Parts: sequence; structure tokens; C-alpha cells
Amino acid sequence: MRRIVVLSGGIGGARFLEGVRAACPEAEVTAIVNTADDLWVFGVRVCPDLDSVMYTLGGGIDPQRRWGRRDETWNAREELGHYGEPDSWFGLGDRDLATHLVRSARLRAGATLSQVTEELCRRWRPGVRLVPMTDDEVETRIVVELPEGERDLHFQEYWIRYRAEAPLRSLRYAGIEAARPAPAVAEVLAEADAIVLAPSNPVVSLRPILEVPGLRDLVRSSAAPVVGVSPIIAGGHVRGMADQLLGGLGLEVSAAAVAEYHGAREGEGVLDGWLVDPADRDAVDRLHAQGITARAVPLYMNDDATTRQLAADAVGLADALVRRR
Amino acid sequence: MRRIVVLSGGIGGARFLEGVRAACPEAEVTAIVNTADDLWVFGVRVCPDLDSVMYTLGGGIDPQRRWGRRDETWNAREELGHYGEPDSWFGLGDRDLATHLVRSARLRAGATLSQVTEELCRRWRPGVRLVPMTDDEVETRIVVELPEGERDLHFQEYWIRYRAEAPLRSLRYAGIEAARPAPAVAEVLAEADAIVLAPSNPVVSLRPILEVPGLRDLVRSSAAPVVGVSPIIAGGHVRGMADQLLGGLGLEVSAAAVAEYHGAREGEGVLDGWLVDPADRDAVDRLHAQGITARAVPLYMNDDATTRQLAADAVGLADALVRRR
Repeated sequence: MRRIVVLSGGIGGARFLEGVRAACPEAEVTAIVNTADDLWVFGVRVCPDLDSVMYTLGGGIDPQRRWGRRDETWNAREELGHYGEPDSWFGLGDRDLATHLVRSARLRAGATLSQVTEELCRRWRPGVRLVPMTDDEVETRIVVELPEGERDLHFQEYWIRYRAEAPLRSLRYAGIEAARPAPAVAEVLAEADAIVLAPSNPVVSLRPILEVPGLRDLVRSSAAPVVGVSPIIAGGHVRGMADQLLGGLGLEVSAAAVAEYHGAREGEGVLDGWLVDPADRDAVDRLHAQGITARAVPLYMNDDATTRQLAADAVGLADALVRRR
Repeated sequence: MRRIVVLSGGIGGARFLEGVRAACPEAEVTAIVNTADDLWVFGVRVCPDLDSVMYTLGGGIDPQRRWGRRDETWNAREELGHYGEPDSWFGLGDRDLATHLVRSARLRAGATLSQVTEELCRRWRPGVRLVPMTDDEVETRIVVELPEGERDLHFQEYWIRYRAEAPLRSLRYAGIEAARPAPAVAEVLAEADAIVLAPSNPVVSLRPILEVPGLRDLVRSSAAPVVGVSPIIAGGHVRGMADQLLGGLGLEVSAAAVAEYHGAREGEGVLDGWLVDPADRDAVDRLHAQGITARAVPLYMNDDATTRQLAADAVGLADALVRRR
């Protein structure tokens, strides 16, 4: 049984995981999922990335929006707005809300996020084991420059309410110093045959996972090769907001620069291998010089076939790197 | 300014309060509302009677069901069922849920139920001041005989899930010994010109209010006359389940017996006056002998006109009793 571990954010990671599940039907796949986007809103705990992965792989995602539930209604949110709730910018659907109610009740009763996630997945049967990066509360906070002055926002507010358009001053993962990797993380990383960084946002999805104290070392010390898929193609993100975040932090927006941001495992980073799109073929040599084996393969996940092929290419690169070691 | 205080349960009390508001547009009306039906369900605090009164007087009630919100959807509850939540018998609509989310978040932040109720009413503007009987948690528990043995149920479960059909062994108001009247209760009762018991369920709506330690004495010591409206007409309830509860507790199901259950203020009870339907005209003499001034007037609240007239008759009886004192 081959064991594949994918570090994942929400939408792009969920799509990529569908590809891994299809490309490697015999493998035991575990997703270690970012939880730094999680938030308490209207008194319930919302886990956007875990839910995007769970709903996508469980067949409950809205196929157009790519987040939240299909056949959704928005009546509770409309009413919250009528009550003047300040958080009613948050996109909380009525069906989605049930997930948060179940999760919040269990968390308040003392269950860990890992336990609750496993319980919720008993319904959704995603075919992939979902493990939160940590059971502790971590929160990506973004300081932005607004017309009325600086404001310190939860990432979700920056993203949904301000559409990632306000100039970014700084970004931090609040609470991460005190966080511990979720209990399953050490074991799944130690036993992995391949570790794959999904084409998720490098700054707000993958970096928080790796910043959980101890987690980066677990990745670096695993016997498995670590490969990643560029979320940047030809100098722009495919979806999401990697552009704004990388640019806002003064980083180059390119497939090679994201790999450098994660770093080579030979150095202080985590990557052995990296997939770029043929449009970024020139990154291959640049990364090779830094000890990262890059390959150029089509990265667009246009349909099930291209998504499956991309996942197969990522796992194939990992396999090639095993053989080389 | 005439001050009228109504002790009220949910649906019938809400309808009666509409009548009082219409009959006495110049009066300052306060409803002291039963909270022993309240419950934590799916992690939110639901107050069925307060909400029925608030939605009814605020124009948000579903006019057919007479509980919950109009234009309601039930998607969150459907999903909770898919998660196997044991409480999914509870009728929680998506719009209604917003009320409970706001309430629960405020309660968890340390607000009292009195405060939250006032805040929620800023949206609904019911035209009547709503005061919970207590800010403490009290719960009507009913022990029933089921095929599998005795079970101790929250009143709401007995009522909704078992439709009040299971044989009743006993009933108690759990937590009531430690409850205190809500802060506004003493003042509104002391300053009242009339105190009216709505035609609400005597056992599970009005009795818990009067059982809050100290509250019965506040009613008995008020200078205002205390009158009530029979919820029983011709030996049966108009709606609800007074039949089952009275019968189950071994009490006579009649308009006179309910007045006796509340008791005459001359004795140990609270009533100076009582309205029965013309069908129960013979109760008038029976109650007179016990010091309760009864009048027979039409009690059916068939439409706005009959409801307003009933409220006017109740307040009129109180006024007559003032003049007599």
C-alpha cells in the first residue's frame, strides 16, 4: 500500500486531491489541511479549507462557486444581516451551517478538531483521510491600509470583504507559536512514501502548515521525497490571490520564486521536486542550481482527466526522486 | 398611562397579546414570558415562547403554523439529520436559526436573557415589552412511560417528538429552586394596573412563571387585580395540550378546575377574576364561592375582532375589580 501525504489549502488543494484519489486508487492518501483560515463567526467554528476538501471529495460542494454546499440557501445569513450582525459579510449558507453547528457543539463538549473532522467525514466519506495541521487555534491576520487607516483583519475578512484589494502591510499567523501538530501528523509524515505540496496558496495555505512548530522538521526528516506543484503559471495565479499576497509581501510572482519561497530540502527548505507549467520551462534550470528537481508538465486542472494527470505527474516525480536517492 | 402585565406562554399567549395591544393602544403592555420550555439544541439556545410572542407581535410569525418564521426553509435541519444528530426532531428553520445564533453568541459573551431579548426586540418592535420570567435556566422535564420503559424528557421533546401522547408519570421544573425573577419583573408587577393570565397552558406555561421563587408573592402583593382567561372551553383545550397535561396529572379538565389550579388570591392563589366561555357558564357560581369573580364571555380568538374583544373583556374585568376594592 503506497502512502501519499498531501499538504493542502482549500479549493485548489481539494481539486488536486480529487486528482490524487483518481490517479492512485490503491494508495492511502492523507491530506494535512491548513486551519489558519478557520474562524469563529456567529458563534460557530468555520474551517474553510477542511470543509472545501471534505465537501469536494464527498460530492457536496457547489460545482460553480467551488466552495460551500450545492443546493444552498442563505436565509440564516439574511436574517443575521437584519439583526445588524457585523459579520454578515461572511458567506454562511444554511446547509453549510449545519456542519459548523455539529463541529462547534463537539468542540464545546471537549472534542478536538481532529476528532470532529473524522466524525464529519463519516458522513462525507471523502476517500482521503483529512487531518487538520493542528488542533490548536491559529489565525492568519493581515494588516491592511484602508482609507480610514490601518486595520488588522482576519484573513477571511481581507479575502471576502475586501477582496484582497486593500494594500497589505504585514501578515502573521497569530497563535502559531503555541500550536502543536495534530496527533496524526507525525505518524503520517514518518510513514509517507511521497509528500506532495498541492498547488495551494504558498503564503496563506501552505506556509502556516509548515510553520506549526515541529511540523517543518517532520517533513524535512521524512524518508519520503517532497514535491510540490506550482500555483503560479506564467507569472499569475490560476485562481485565488497568490498574486496579491506574494506581491504585497515583496516576493516575485513566478513559479520559480514560489519554489524558492518553500526552499530546497538540501538547504533549509522542504522541496526535493517541483512541477511547473511548460510556460515556465525556464524555471527548471534556475531551480536545479538550488537542488530542486523541476519538471515542466501541464498544470491547468481543466477537467478530471487533466487533474488526474497532474496528480500522476506529481506522484511520478516523487517516485523518480525515491529511485535516485 | 395604564400599565398592563400579561403572564404568557407561546402561541395562545402571543395571539392574546395581539388582542391586548389592539384593545389598549394607549397602555404600556409588558409580557412576562415563560422560559421553562427553553432548551439548548444543536449548540444554540432556543426560547420557544419568547420567540413565538416576538415573531407574532413583530409580524414575522408563520401565519399557518403559528410558530417559527414565515417564508422559512429547513435546510440546516435536514443536514443535521444527515449528520445523525439525535435532536433533529426539533423544528429549527433556517431563518429562525439566526435568532438563536445571535442570542447564543450574546449569552456566551455574558449577556443575560433579559438583555438579549431586549436587543432582539429592537429589530422586531413588538409594541409590547417582553420580559423573560427569569434569566436563569429552568427546564420543564416530563417523565413518560414508553414501550421501552420510563424516559425523562425535556418538555419540547415530549411535545414535538412524542406529540404529548405518551402516558405521563410526572412533571417538574428542573432548576427552578435556584432561579430568580428577571430584574424587571418586580417593578413591572408592582407598578401594574392590571395583571392578566393569558389563555396559555396552565401547567407548562403559567405555573413555571409563578413557581419562580418570589414571583408568586410579587403577583399576590401587587395592588393590581389579577385576572385570567380560561384555556379550556367546554372541557377541552382550544389548541395545545392542556388536556393531556391536566388529565395526566389527575386534574379535572374544565374551565373551573384551571382557575382552581391557579387558586384565588383570597386564599393561597393568584386570581381575583376569571373569564370562561359561555359554554362554561356554570363555572361562574362555583368559582364565586371560592372568591374568584368569573364572567362568561366568548373566548374563541377566531379573528382580530374576537381576539381584541376578549382582551378588552379581560382588562374590563380587571377594571371592574379595581373599582370594587
